[in-house]
Amino acid sequence: MTELSQLETPCLVLERGRLAANAARLRRRLAELGVPLRLHVKTAKSLEVIDFVLGGAKAPITVSTLKEAEQFFDAGYRDILYAVGFAKHKLPRARALAARGANLTLLVDSVEVAGDIGGFPVLIEIDTDGHRAGVKPEDETQLVAIARALEVAGSIAAGVMTHAGGSYDCGSVEEIAAMAERERVGAVAAAQALRRAGFAAPTVSVGSTPTATYARNLAGVTEVRAGVFVFFDLVMAGIDVCRQEDIALSVLATVIGHRADRGWILVDAGWMAMSRDRGTAKQRIDQGYGVVCDLDGHALDDLILTDANQEHGIVARRTGGTPPELPVGARLRILPNHACATGAQHEAYYTVHGSREVVAVWKRFSGW
Amino acid sequence: MTELSQLETPCLVLERGRLAANAARLRRRLAELGVPLRLHVKTAKSLEVIDFVLGGAKAPITVSTLKEAEQFFDAGYRDILYAVGFAKHKLPRARALAARGANLTLLVDSVEVAGDIGGFPVLIEIDTDGHRAGVKPEDETQLVAIARALEVAGSIAAGVMTHAGGSYDCGSVEEIAAMAERERVGAVAAAQALRRAGFAAPTVSVGSTPTATYARNLAGVTEVRAGVFVFFDLVMAGIDVCRQEDIALSVLATVIGHRADRGWILVDAGWMAMSRDRGTAKQRIDQGYGVVCDLDGHALDDLILTDANQEHGIVARRTGGTPPELPVGARLRILPNHACATGAQHEAYYTVHGSREVVAVWKRFSGW
Repeated sequence: MTELSQLETPCLVLERGRLAANAARLRRRLAELGVPLRLHVKTAKSLEVIDFVLGGAKAPITVSTLKEAEQFFDAGYRDILYAVGFAKHKLPRARALAARGANLTLLVDSVEVAGDIGGFPVLIEIDTDGHRAGVKPEDETQLVAIARALEVAGSIAAGVMTHAGGSYDCGSVEEIAAMAERERVGAVAAAQALRRAGFAAPTVSVGSTPTATYARNLAGVTEVRAGVFVFFDLVMAGIDVCRQEDIALSVLATVIGHRADRGWILVDAGWMAMSRDRGTAKQRIDQGYGVVCDLDGHALDDLILTDANQEHGIVARRTGGTPPELPVGARLRILPNHACATGAQHEAYYTVHGSREVVAVWKRFSGW
Repeated sequence: MTELSQLETPCLVLERGRLAANAARLRRRLAELGVPLRLHVKTAKSLEVIDFVLGGAKAPITVSTLKEAEQFFDAGYRDILYAVGFAKHKLPRARALAARGANLTLLVDSVEVAGDIGGFPVLIEIDTDGHRAGVKPEDETQLVAIARALEVAGSIAAGVMTHAGGSYDCGSVEEIAAMAERERVGAVAAAQALRRAGFAAPTVSVGSTPTATYARNLAGVTEVRAGVFVFFDLVMAGIDVCRQEDIALSVLATVIGHRADRGWILVDAGWMAMSRDRGTAKQRIDQGYGVVCDLDGHALDDLILTDANQEHGIVARRTGGTPPELPVGARLRILPNHACATGAQHEAYYTVHGSREVVAVWKRFSGW
């Protein structure tokens, strides 16, 4: 059997025990609140990971690209929400997928685009936190106009969707819970406006990993979307959505040199392996390009990846000073700032389960 | 023939005329200084791009990963410098490549690693700017000890290599020229120390795109490495190594929505298409996630990608205010902060040449 110490580096290590625990925790939480999960597959982009998380059930999923929709449809998934504002030039691929039997739901936030789409169930994007796209929940005129345009064009105004991406910037669990409630209230209000105007609008879709984790009430919500919770990362740990010990994803690296005069250890994981994501830079604790752990995944003496070039990472103590002795050839695991971004730099997950032995290699895809 | 307006978005557009001009400019510059180029292929990671830049010659190249070495060896390249500090666990792949006929040169900066490597030409890494790895040029004892360890282990102490990566942070052309001179002086001094100690050390390899562009004297240098100059990017334009009009690489995106109340145009190129690189954030002009151009590559009304989510980009005027009218479906081209990082998010270059017509699709690879 291959062990982590024998792999080529850098590569992506996935701890299956943590993955299972993270998935179970969110599932339990949503079961308590009585709302089903629509798993977002954009973080993992891997059939094996998603099959594992869903226990093989071909449950409803969320995608961020048509390529994700196509890959998961080919693997047997049928109920797919494409949760990025649609535009007409993507119609041929969306139609091809629907013609093959996908129940593909699209997303719009304007009358203009609504009028371009025929033949799909479509959600109207609601802006509940001002961070991106969407119609304001109180803009009933606009909501109804979009729903009308959808039905005139031959689509179904299937309901509303909102994503409180602003929750990533929350400073406390209380703030996240408040954001979750804002997300719920806005989405439910928008759906009710549509229903008052005579549209069935059955779907009320909300979510982000932080709000899914700390929502206290999901009354009126019909599904919750979340993705990064399967892996978690330092950004999520930084806002108390998980503990650092819950992070299932890390980058395996090898020590390639030292700069004793500067207290640096050089490793072969640079930004190409970690991504350029510096999501913790604006948090209370800046983790550089990642937290350095030993081969068993335990954080090592306050070491972080303080800087990164394309194929070089610089490991140093957060507070300066002499780092522990790690000879050339020593293996380390580095926890990422942002699992979605770090994952995207790799083509496979080397999966372990409570030991250093690689129990499976799970592929991931990229592109659009 | 396919036109840019017909492509799926986001995707990578490469302007071949600019690519050719950028390559010709650096080649002319180095010819004046009488030193050959050892092209770094880590920016493009594409056989077609490198073949185009080198006019089909299987000239010496630099790589940042063994995968690049293997891919280019398979395509006929023989003289390959692996310019990242080596470590023993990579020996089997390096030996396999050498056994197939590659003239693979490795890099070390410690006695410890030097003693692990037998049978290769090896350069000693010199630190001329303090930004990463390497031996100080004046540390003659260490230099000679490494060269001895190499020859004892059965390798050839082939010379020295330095990379003034610090040149990316220079504030002016004068500073870059000074950095180039520091790079040259340090590398030549280190090589001379080795020669005084009886080693042939024929190779003196220096380079980075900024220093290659503005070096005034390369006496004693035997080769110059540079990579990003083939594409250029906003970071290079920000330190006057190129003009914005020289940037050959851009990301094609489609408008998917508007937020008139905020002056935002939403596009389908987020950080997955642009990368998380924010290299211009510390420069005089912060370009956000990129400069927005029209379909012909001309900058549009001071628009930049002010923010990015995974598959959403937010386009706005740099100084705020109402953006120009760009309807849903409109196509834009976005110039990247850092060509190496943006390129790595994609699997192909859609190549154009002075018009909107795609004249070739060139593949690129990723991974290690």
